[in-house]
Amino acid sequence: MPERLVVIGGDAAGMSAASQARKRRGADDLSIVAFERGRTTSYSACGIPYWIGNDVTSRDALITRTPEEFRGKQDIDMRIRSDVQSIDLERKTVRVHDLDAGRTYDEAYDQLMIATGSVPTRPPIDGIDADGVYGVQTLDDGTDLREELDSGEVKHVVVVGGGYIGLEIAEATKSRGFEVTVVDMSETPIGTFDPDVGHFLADAVRGLGIELILGDGAARIETDRDGRVCSVHTRSGRVLPADLVVLGLGVRPNVALAKNAGIPLGTSGGIAVDQRMRTQVEGVWAAGDCVESVHRLSGHRVVVALGTHANKQGRVAGINLGGGYATFAGVIGTAITKICEVEAARTGLSEREARESGYEFVTAVVDSTTRAGYYPGAQPIRLKLLAERRSGRLLGAQIVGKDTAAKRIDVLAATIWNGMTVDEILGMDLSYAPPFSPVWDPVLIAARKAQDAVEADISSTIATGR
Amino acid sequence: MPERLVVIGGDAAGMSAASQARKRRGADDLSIVAFERGRTTSYSACGIPYWIGNDVTSRDALITRTPEEFRGKQDIDMRIRSDVQSIDLERKTVRVHDLDAGRTYDEAYDQLMIATGSVPTRPPIDGIDADGVYGVQTLDDGTDLREELDSGEVKHVVVVGGGYIGLEIAEATKSRGFEVTVVDMSETPIGTFDPDVGHFLADAVRGLGIELILGDGAARIETDRDGRVCSVHTRSGRVLPADLVVLGLGVRPNVALAKNAGIPLGTSGGIAVDQRMRTQVEGVWAAGDCVESVHRLSGHRVVVALGTHANKQGRVAGINLGGGYATFAGVIGTAITKICEVEAARTGLSEREARESGYEFVTAVVDSTTRAGYYPGAQPIRLKLLAERRSGRLLGAQIVGKDTAAKRIDVLAATIWNGMTVDEILGMDLSYAPPFSPVWDPVLIAARKAQDAVEADISSTIATGR
Repeated sequence: MPERLVVIGGDAAGMSAASQARKRRGADDLSIVAFERGRTTSYSACGIPYWIGNDVTSRDALITRTPEEFRGKQDIDMRIRSDVQSIDLERKTVRVHDLDAGRTYDEAYDQLMIATGSVPTRPPIDGIDADGVYGVQTLDDGTDLREELDSGEVKHVVVVGGGYIGLEIAEATKSRGFEVTVVDMSETPIGTFDPDVGHFLADAVRGLGIELILGDGAARIETDRDGRVCSVHTRSGRVLPADLVVLGLGVRPNVALAKNAGIPLGTSGGIAVDQRMRTQVEGVWAAGDCVESVHRLSGHRVVVALGTHANKQGRVAGINLGGGYATFAGVIGTAITKICEVEAARTGLSEREARESGYEFVTAVVDSTTRAGYYPGAQPIRLKLLAERRSGRLLGAQIVGKDTAAKRIDVLAATIWNGMTVDEILGMDLSYAPPFSPVWDPVLIAARKAQDAVEADISSTIATGR
Repeated sequence: MPERLVVIGGDAAGMSAASQARKRRGADDLSIVAFERGRTTSYSACGIPYWIGNDVTSRDALITRTPEEFRGKQDIDMRIRSDVQSIDLERKTVRVHDLDAGRTYDEAYDQLMIATGSVPTRPPIDGIDADGVYGVQTLDDGTDLREELDSGEVKHVVVVGGGYIGLEIAEATKSRGFEVTVVDMSETPIGTFDPDVGHFLADAVRGLGIELILGDGAARIETDRDGRVCSVHTRSGRVLPADLVVLGLGVRPNVALAKNAGIPLGTSGGIAVDQRMRTQVEGVWAAGDCVESVHRLSGHRVVVALGTHANKQGRVAGINLGGGYATFAGVIGTAITKICEVEAARTGLSEREARESGYEFVTAVVDSTTRAGYYPGAQPIRLKLLAERRSGRLLGAQIVGKDTAAKRIDVLAATIWNGMTVDEILGMDLSYAPPFSPVWDPVLIAARKAQDAVEADISSTIATGR
């Protein structure tokens, strides 16, 4: 009898794990059953806003691998529309509700892979569960949302929360001609950017004709006679007409199944896993949005819901399940986004995060251009660096700009990953030609300015005797 | 009496050094005299091809700082049209020929900064010094070349050598409607790319309608009655009509002055300098295209003529001249270029370079897209990685593609700089969103494939007992 692997969740983490395990162990050695509540498997959740905005024309373009492909090519028993309702750690079974057949059954496992992802944060306010209030978490959510938008009944869209997804949906719906309002509690949108970078994002959002209300939140959602959303009341008392509400408050790990089964969660609220993606229960693995990761700079356990981590973690789990050896190296909070032409990216710690981690630091902000200043198409780029006091170690970086600005964050992510100081970064041999950067790449200019700040801080520390 | 610094060469390295020294030491402590043979100072030599091609409309746009600015703002005695003919290390003087006044005089120094740059490689063939044969090294060269092109007398341009500058000039002149032929000895253009990447460059060049002759070189240059170039004869016997010949064979360090004075050169032919940019003669410094640098991977001394190094090295020399402390960390051969829409970049060692350095390695080539495959504007990107056998350390990377492909080389440069293995690279937290990369960034896909190759090599090594 082959060992049996049961996978809960048919997207990035779950199916990466299943594929990697299969690659190393044939069906005679390992049978794999995967359950997915929705209709689709292995799709790009991050691509949903672009499909809603018609940048991506076909829903199928977002799907990497269909259930049929998993069944045919990889000998994985992929069961869609199958909701796993509970896990019995004693009996080593999961209880599955077949949504189409309407029946419930138990499935036994030897190894269990939990990849239940995340769910949109829903503030506990009146009306939050009304018709017309959408999270954008799964492709099925996206499909429903798109149908609403196509119905001709929607004019006003209110996005509650100005995080990455919130802004992407706001742009997508605005581009299709809807009246769009975003309401967010922070001083500037996407709270993981410091305000001096974030305000460029605010300008970009407003530049699209989107109404952006900051420092305010949703207090309650009003419904009409049919129980359908008709307006959003903010804490400050504003009333925003709304035919459709999209939740953009971020997500929380979907850990109900694990928690109810008694699988330990970590301090962050995500499922606790070790370097190999093993939970604290023998034979039970977890990966993706539902687990917590180590932040390499803060040392904190954090939950970061991002497709790239889910893929990597799933791969790690799958290699280990397949008898190999792999570990997940942690995260440093790298993220990137685009609002119309404005690109923004960040890595490491923001000022607030650095302070919360106990770091003291200096900052440097530089404005430069993406290409040599004289080269056609050169666009502005602003970089902000946080360097640790005394050591000069780079703790965080934020970029905002146009053209090719934001993807430079990966260079800074690589330097943070390696614990480099800004002085060391300044020496790096980065590429230069006029179509690609000024002779001092903006990354190097920023490192130079940060190094100046580190030295000035040391000097003033000595001068003041502190 | 203030100490006297004499700088030979008024471009990137020399003037960075002068500016940094001035920043730290006022005119009462350090007087600075800088000599420049040409008319212009601190310009972007790398920008010349784009000015010739009319992408940059004004010659002045290439100039960062004029002689007047150096004199006025920085109290630097900037003397243009001043050709330094010799250095007397005993007497601590330089002999200067004032090209406009026609007189020669000696100038004393306490500290001497040599920043004489490079000169185009001129093969020892008949006709190489004929009228109409141009190097593109200085802005004055560029000005002369442009005047010729504007004269209406030129129809056929032959570029001898398909390196970076050669191809850039070929594209620039082709875009202005000239008939352009490039002849190069290598199998593919820009010999620092491996042929499996370089052939994309060949395709790009030919796609522009430029005639590209590979595996062939210039045997002699024919002149007409007036001593002006009229054709290039290749080694294989082809006769290429030419109204203008541009040398694109690369450059060699301009070390005649230093060599004649008895300042030691290194094994590479460049001026030998230590970490602080000091030559082996007390009080004599050097930086930029005329010095040799340490290649961090091969351990070899190499001459790399690139504005970004010249700026950094000049800065290091100037900080040290100013009483501070700075070192130059070496190079890893990072370079980038663009031919029409095709971008190419490289860092670390090519296959040939790695072999010459004694490394054994495996390679991985992957084809991916610059953005998520479904995202509009996603373009092809090919990455090639060289990883050391057994250790898996990344030794080299090459990228060719469109859109935002090539600047990703900086991420790989940062990983090579830090001695990362491809397995470690695979774990890095790089940015992901559909407008910027697939969920597995091409850099990570390449690292994954390279890691597979490293493991397969180890496995076969054990199997064969070698």
